[in-house]
Amino acid sequence: MKFYDCTTAPSPRRVRIFLAEKGISVPTVQVDLRNNEQLTPAFRAINPDATVPALELDDGTRINDAIGICVYFEAIHPQPPLMGESAEEKALITSWQREVERNGFYGVMEAFRNSVRGLKNRALPGPHDYEQIPALAERGRLRVGHFFSQLDARLGHSEFVAGPRYSVADITALVTADFAGRAKLLLPEECGHLRRWHMQVSARPSAKA
Amino acid sequence: MKFYDCTTAPSPRRVRIFLAEKGISVPTVQVDLRNNEQLTPAFRAINPDATVPALELDDGTRINDAIGICVYFEAIHPQPPLMGESAEEKALITSWQREVERNGFYGVMEAFRNSVRGLKNRALPGPHDYEQIPALAERGRLRVGHFFSQLDARLGHSEFVAGPRYSVADITALVTADFAGRAKLLLPEECGHLRRWHMQVSARPSAKA
Repeated sequence: MKFYDCTTAPSPRRVRIFLAEKGISVPTVQVDLRNNEQLTPAFRAINPDATVPALELDDGTRINDAIGICVYFEAIHPQPPLMGESAEEKALITSWQREVERNGFYGVMEAFRNSVRGLKNRALPGPHDYEQIPALAERGRLRVGHFFSQLDARLGHSEFVAGPRYSVADITALVTADFAGRAKLLLPEECGHLRRWHMQVSARPSAKA
Repeated sequence: MKFYDCTTAPSPRRVRIFLAEKGISVPTVQVDLRNNEQLTPAFRAINPDATVPALELDDGTRINDAIGICVYFEAIHPQPPLMGESAEEKALITSWQREVERNGFYGVMEAFRNSVRGLKNRALPGPHDYEQIPALAERGRLRVGHFFSQLDARLGHSEFVAGPRYSVADITALVTADFAGRAKLLLPEECGHLRRWHMQVSARPSAKA
């Protein structure tokens, strides 16, 4: 098994935290995104979509998506459960993970990738070049503001994002919050519940992954 | 149990097809998106994120995301499996479902919502207004072209999107292709594999859902 990672990128960090929570370690290869190694023919033979993370199984099967990789490890190594046990819990964790990703993670990505100088024609990850759209960077910043308020409200009556247990939804939310920080979008002072939660999940050893 | 639907919208159609494949019928309420019923306080009490589909369970729990709802029904009604059985199959279906959604569904949504007159300040679903960005409509059209080529290549060596079995990844891809048609983005003549697959999945009774 081989895990294609990049320590500075947010998407593979989701998997690293997931693995750390489960106590699993996997042989890891670093992909140098800074020098566009993901666009080389060698890496595109592994993942044609030219993104990290990717996981290669011993039979050569490749899983080219952060949540797809988490699904794999949840199935082969169910403890501790990070994607729910009952039908209802599985559904709620999936929903919250996706809502955080859609409203938060993609908002930060819009803000970041459409404004950073070094990503001039790389406004989206993947094999195709797309020009930055300044209005989209602006919209991303607005979205992230709304997302912080939404999550703060949720965390006012729930210990963790998807309910009483830490889950993959918290992992996506933590990676989103820290990625937002890199885009200079800090957790608002008035979002007390969000800040309480962020301190709590950041104190888990897995957050260092 | 109550399913909040809108027959003309693509996201709830994903769930309708999923349920039809499983032979499940659920009491359904139509939400009038054309008149912004999703933004009313009454509907936002059900789903604060102001989107359909939503599923309300008998104990009052709400699941506010198309794939979250599919996860629920897959767990309580596993046959026929649409999200995989082995760890590897589950992971591949999750990955492909997400790749189709990211590269295809969201691309069509960009093209459609940033250009249609009736969605002037509704460039994103959800409770917040966002202005249309014409450059984003243009980028969406480019993305959909790339997506069709990507999927055509995949379907050249795989009967269905995620492998030899029909799955939720095919459902997302079918809804994406038909939604693209509404944005006047038709399946290219030269994409023979994609067209073969589209005819095949459209012929299943579930496609009428």
